[in-house]
Amino acid sequence: MSVQAPASSLPSITEDEIFSAHVGGKLSVSYTTPLDSKRALSIAYTPGVAQVSRAIAQDPAKHATYTWASRLVAVVSDGTAVLGLGNIGAGASLPVMEGKSALFKAFGGLDSIPLVLNTTNVDEIVATLVHLRPSFGAVNLEDVSAPRCFELEEKLIEALDCPVMHDDQHGTAVVVLAALTNAAKVVGRELSSLRVVVSGAGAAGIAIAEILIASGVDDVLLVDSRGIIHRDRDDLNPVKAKYAAKTNRNNIVGGIRAALDGADVLIGVSSAKVTEADLEGMNQGAIIFALSNPDPEVMPDVAARHASIVATGRSDFPNQINNVLAFPGIFRGALDCGASKITAEMKIAAARAIASLVDGELRHDYIVPSPLDPRVADTVAAAVAAAWQG
Amino acid sequence: MSVQAPASSLPSITEDEIFSAHVGGKLSVSYTTPLDSKRALSIAYTPGVAQVSRAIAQDPAKHATYTWASRLVAVVSDGTAVLGLGNIGAGASLPVMEGKSALFKAFGGLDSIPLVLNTTNVDEIVATLVHLRPSFGAVNLEDVSAPRCFELEEKLIEALDCPVMHDDQHGTAVVVLAALTNAAKVVGRELSSLRVVVSGAGAAGIAIAEILIASGVDDVLLVDSRGIIHRDRDDLNPVKAKYAAKTNRNNIVGGIRAALDGADVLIGVSSAKVTEADLEGMNQGAIIFALSNPDPEVMPDVAARHASIVATGRSDFPNQINNVLAFPGIFRGALDCGASKITAEMKIAAARAIASLVDGELRHDYIVPSPLDPRVADTVAAAVAAAWQG
Repeated sequence: MSVQAPASSLPSITEDEIFSAHVGGKLSVSYTTPLDSKRALSIAYTPGVAQVSRAIAQDPAKHATYTWASRLVAVVSDGTAVLGLGNIGAGASLPVMEGKSALFKAFGGLDSIPLVLNTTNVDEIVATLVHLRPSFGAVNLEDVSAPRCFELEEKLIEALDCPVMHDDQHGTAVVVLAALTNAAKVVGRELSSLRVVVSGAGAAGIAIAEILIASGVDDVLLVDSRGIIHRDRDDLNPVKAKYAAKTNRNNIVGGIRAALDGADVLIGVSSAKVTEADLEGMNQGAIIFALSNPDPEVMPDVAARHASIVATGRSDFPNQINNVLAFPGIFRGALDCGASKITAEMKIAAARAIASLVDGELRHDYIVPSPLDPRVADTVAAAVAAAWQG
Repeated sequence: MSVQAPASSLPSITEDEIFSAHVGGKLSVSYTTPLDSKRALSIAYTPGVAQVSRAIAQDPAKHATYTWASRLVAVVSDGTAVLGLGNIGAGASLPVMEGKSALFKAFGGLDSIPLVLNTTNVDEIVATLVHLRPSFGAVNLEDVSAPRCFELEEKLIEALDCPVMHDDQHGTAVVVLAALTNAAKVVGRELSSLRVVVSGAGAAGIAIAEILIASGVDDVLLVDSRGIIHRDRDDLNPVKAKYAAKTNRNNIVGGIRAALDGADVLIGVSSAKVTEADLEGMNQGAIIFALSNPDPEVMPDVAARHASIVATGRSDFPNQINNVLAFPGIFRGALDCGASKITAEMKIAAARAIASLVDGELRHDYIVPSPLDPRVADTVAAAVAAAWQG
């Protein structure tokens, strides 16, 4: 997850309270059929279950009807890029994945299980999930480091005939697109006319560039720790090199300040700080999403001196860009319609659905719904399912 | 599971009723912390969870305290020997594994997740579980075909530092030992004095021989589809060859009838039928466990003409030998005491605990507790934990 609020914004939460809430983990498996009599056991287990197993063996399509797998999301991580903590390993990532599973249930009504892997070898992770394929219905990749995450997601999509999505990439990108769609409306601009600077070219940055380009934004600049990504750089990994060709149409060279000169939008998804001087060259009516957590690239009060609209990843400021607006509905929609993958069209439909929920109430400080808005997942799921062309 | 009751014994259960109970699967994942406010989200997920993940990264022992993994059983199958249905594949085995997970919760209070693998390659299964090691606390192997199951269990025990048990082997063996201990009391014999014939040298048969020998029974005969296992046979797989050296001390040759001549006990765990003529040579006060399901090797009324005590795997006859008496308590005991494996001593302790629950009420038709006896799992768990020497 690239989106988290800072502990400092929640002064009333103590360390004791946090650790107490995690003792024994945060998930529980229960059964949905009675098991309290010999008769009930004979239905749910032997001998009754043999009839169900035999039926699936004869007609594998019945696996989707008579098991939980087709509604089950595997929340998968190798612990290499956990929150802002970096590569802390699979075991230490598990509390995050349990939390993610809890969010799937609370917000999307989906069962899910955390599967954390103590290998960082992409092919071993793929092989593990291929072997387990009959156990689940979809894969939510989480907290996998870039650029490995791109290769891993691509190989899993190829290897598995079910929805696979790396949420740190696409969940973030979907919510950013939703927020930017509404922000453009507020400032009276066409989305496609915006010049957008994305600071950070990791999982989130690349996916944001991808979805913006797919949505008609043709002037995107990506900036990494060494400056603007352009076609003459020889220090780019393959994914960045691919986006060097797709972004920066004028082949601008320089750092964040050069990138922001004449830009309409800044989307920060790295921890790299942006100074007030960097922002001075932005156009009138600028839009700034400073999404790094817990410390935004630029604090909202500073950003507001140079922008009409400001968003962060924090719950204690307006316009919180939070992945929970996207992933529960995206996965539920994809599972509802039996999709074998999550397409670009489905992600864009999800963004439009999220944006649509603040139609009529749009303000500079209300461009996305609250993460707790109960309409979100249903609306997103319906839009995602409708956008699937199987 | 080698133990199931026949559909025919439950005439009031319709096919519709069985299939309806399985629609959507039989399990559900819920969360145990509130998620209904921004504050609650900040405790269970970001930013609060980061403190927990950081603590585990700094001290891996905290993984056991602050995740669900240390209490979670992975119910693992490759679908190669499912109930009496044979090799029907991983997908078709999932309803059985969901049922097993339900039993773990209902009888042992343990969370568990079914992991079904669409590979039958032992090393691939081992690698898959090794990669997933931080995700769970124990492995219950289920419905894996013999002799692969012996190699798989051995390699998993070697590769994983957590309890691993193939229930079709050891769960069955533990309940058989419990039942035989009590049956011997009823007929006034010492367990160690009995001559025992085990018909079937698959998963259950081998494990039964193993636990009987470990319990002091030194006259065991194993019989497979080609007859008595003896040291001069050249058609034995490595596991059977190992037991050819440990059993059949007089190197008897022949079929089931020769084996039963002068025997005190018959334990049937194959589907091979035993005729009344086969039973005629058994000693006075014989004990017959005909455990094949749904059709016992010999029906109880016929067996009773040649034996003082008869047991089956069926719920519609007295003395039901049912694995549910063993596995929930064995795994809970092993997890309670933090055992890194399930030892022979722990299995024997489990059998003694099960047997002890009918002390004082022992009769020829009451040698094991009911599968629904609520005392069983707690009693077994306590005995198993006490027997662990870590």
